[in-house]
Amino acid sequence: MTALKPVPTDDLTGQMRALGQAARAAAHALAHTDSETKTRALTSAAEAVRVERDAILAANAEDMTAAADKNLTAAMLDRLKLDEARVAAIAKGLEDVAALPDPVGKVTEEWERPNGLRISRVRVPLGVIGIIYESRPNVTADAGGLCLKAGNAAVLRGGSESFHSSRAIAACLHEGLRAAGLPDTAVQLVPTTDRAAVGLMLTMPEFIDVIVPRGGKSLIERVQRESRIPVFAHLEGLCHVYVDGAADAKMAREVVLNAKMRRTGICGAAETLLIDRAVAESQLPGIVADLVEAGCALRGDEAAQAIDSRIAPAAPADWDTEYLDAVLAIRVVDGLDEAIDHVNRHGSHHTDSIVTADGSVAERFLSKVDSGIVLWNASTQFADGGEFGMGAEIGISTGKLHARGPVGAEQLTSYKYVVRGAGQTRP
Amino acid sequence: MTALKPVPTDDLTGQMRALGQAARAAAHALAHTDSETKTRALTSAAEAVRVERDAILAANAEDMTAAADKNLTAAMLDRLKLDEARVAAIAKGLEDVAALPDPVGKVTEEWERPNGLRISRVRVPLGVIGIIYESRPNVTADAGGLCLKAGNAAVLRGGSESFHSSRAIAACLHEGLRAAGLPDTAVQLVPTTDRAAVGLMLTMPEFIDVIVPRGGKSLIERVQRESRIPVFAHLEGLCHVYVDGAADAKMAREVVLNAKMRRTGICGAAETLLIDRAVAESQLPGIVADLVEAGCALRGDEAAQAIDSRIAPAAPADWDTEYLDAVLAIRVVDGLDEAIDHVNRHGSHHTDSIVTADGSVAERFLSKVDSGIVLWNASTQFADGGEFGMGAEIGISTGKLHARGPVGAEQLTSYKYVVRGAGQTRP
Repeated sequence: MTALKPVPTDDLTGQMRALGQAARAAAHALAHTDSETKTRALTSAAEAVRVERDAILAANAEDMTAAADKNLTAAMLDRLKLDEARVAAIAKGLEDVAALPDPVGKVTEEWERPNGLRISRVRVPLGVIGIIYESRPNVTADAGGLCLKAGNAAVLRGGSESFHSSRAIAACLHEGLRAAGLPDTAVQLVPTTDRAAVGLMLTMPEFIDVIVPRGGKSLIERVQRESRIPVFAHLEGLCHVYVDGAADAKMAREVVLNAKMRRTGICGAAETLLIDRAVAESQLPGIVADLVEAGCALRGDEAAQAIDSRIAPAAPADWDTEYLDAVLAIRVVDGLDEAIDHVNRHGSHHTDSIVTADGSVAERFLSKVDSGIVLWNASTQFADGGEFGMGAEIGISTGKLHARGPVGAEQLTSYKYVVRGAGQTRP
Repeated sequence: MTALKPVPTDDLTGQMRALGQAARAAAHALAHTDSETKTRALTSAAEAVRVERDAILAANAEDMTAAADKNLTAAMLDRLKLDEARVAAIAKGLEDVAALPDPVGKVTEEWERPNGLRISRVRVPLGVIGIIYESRPNVTADAGGLCLKAGNAAVLRGGSESFHSSRAIAACLHEGLRAAGLPDTAVQLVPTTDRAAVGLMLTMPEFIDVIVPRGGKSLIERVQRESRIPVFAHLEGLCHVYVDGAADAKMAREVVLNAKMRRTGICGAAETLLIDRAVAESQLPGIVADLVEAGCALRGDEAAQAIDSRIAPAAPADWDTEYLDAVLAIRVVDGLDEAIDHVNRHGSHHTDSIVTADGSVAERFLSKVDSGIVLWNASTQFADGGEFGMGAEIGISTGKLHARGPVGAEQLTSYKYVVRGAGQTRP
């Protein structure tokens, strides 16, 4: 294990700048590191995680002990807790990232000009990625690994609750980097739990190119408000399922139940059901029955309540609420256009789905709903880089610039134009 | 011509917000406008420019008269001045944009998952683009047309010098929009010369998605400093040509002369020549002879001065200066790595070129120089969307996020993931 020295708070700015400078230098080295070396670093880090399992668990036990005094919720404690299976999953995650194709150097377009100039667009790393996260210690490995894969240096700022766990995992990443002959400044953990470090990260555009916040809404809001650096994030996943008049009733039940209840705490979970008035009477009771049986509370507009008495009244705020819980808002709409309008007005441009057997209705929804991910006849819970076949993801973006939807290794790259000539000059 | 009402300064914030709101609404309409309609708007606008030629020239004459009292440089007056040929070029530019392929709706990737989900990545417009520019009135048509092509609404803030000219050209764009049944709020000219309007534009992220500044360094600096909205821009084009030890002497002379002197005031003009010590003695005098004959002043390091007495001494600041004039800094370097290091340290990550007959040396330069455009055996003056075959461009970006290099219609789009299923739920 690398011993990380505590930082005197009075010199936090200097320390953070030094860390940023080291990250920038590491990024220059990583940009020209070949795929094999990066793969070796990742697989060696995975091995180190397995070898150091007991040390990681001991560090996690320290965090859990400290957390016991802090009045954390059960969900937060569960996110913080590591066990043998979770440590094994961290190692496996690093190997999965190692096995992904290297996006760097890939020629995405190539053409020749009439004057003989050959132009290609080639993927290059972005530079330095700053990741700010809360209690999950595994983000240290997931995010650090994904940044490394795409040739970027990572500056990781984990939550104070998971400080010891993250430090133990970061030490394994450093072992992997050293085994591959790479500087361990390629992945740096901010060595302090001082909250001021976050503010400093957000205002170092000369050292950090992109910020990725991972955590609750208050963290994301703070980052989006304070950052002088572009942010890849989603503030909310206020996802909708629209059951159209031409929906297959059985499919609608299955998709709605899964979209809401498979896991209620993830960003791709549905929060609002919109149902076409044409089928509300016939299909809503079946959908409601499944949801109630699964333990979901329902809040609907008057039309929905009139159809099924198990639906409580919705307040106006319900259409704008990401419950992240076993609660669903239900609204009866007058067909496709009202549904699209509701989604674009109340949604968070994250992930929205339509259930319908009518292809032209579906295409209109897919085209007009302004969200990073739009689905037809599938659950919103597929909103995940892994489910997309992109491998690991560092998060999901609802921004429209650079990265939208799942942010994987490819989205952590930029590009350059390479032009090969034979002495051409411009007339 | 549309009469634009003067805005009372005391309500500028409200007026700008109203303008932003109208742009957002227009962007929603444009996002689903088919290619034919957008093409019709562009060709009708081109026709309106031809029909209204005399009105445009009269408006420009007003600007030129006002400018005469303002102590503008000859270069600024030239940029401002319109004549029949320039008005014809504006109309032709709109037709060229009309003829480009529509980037919106293009499926850039498509794949199927083992569970049968069919995923595609589809280009969608970005939204609202704010363009802030100086004296060239033609930017009104170029930028407005390119935004429209990519389905974006445009908010144009031209320089106060070109206010009447820009207004006359904007009126033609509005005629084109109306002829195609589109709202003329799709392209809005900020109807005031009040500089505070720029500050308001930069702080309306709810209405404007991207800012593109076009103009001198002080404008770009102000925009980059104040903007709360992502900016596509380059602050400088401090471009280099490196003449390698394996360069063909004749090609080196031609490329350097063209890169520096074809046009000295454009961002792709070379500002520094780096020459390998191995060929400095043999090749520099020929290169210098061409440049001196073309009227270029030369400032070199000691090694360069020792070789050719026509080279004046360079000060340290010369390596960091974008002359935009007939001046070239010359430094003798010890081979490729020193050249790469110089470019990455002193350049602006815009456009840099190597002249060499050695392919492996060239590839190393192309890979290691961290610029949006890197060239081998070709002039830096090819840094231009038109020369890249991308059609019109709204500018060149030295940022690494979203758009790098020439920013054309494709770079003014985002994407969404469209997922088509058959009722899949996530296990």
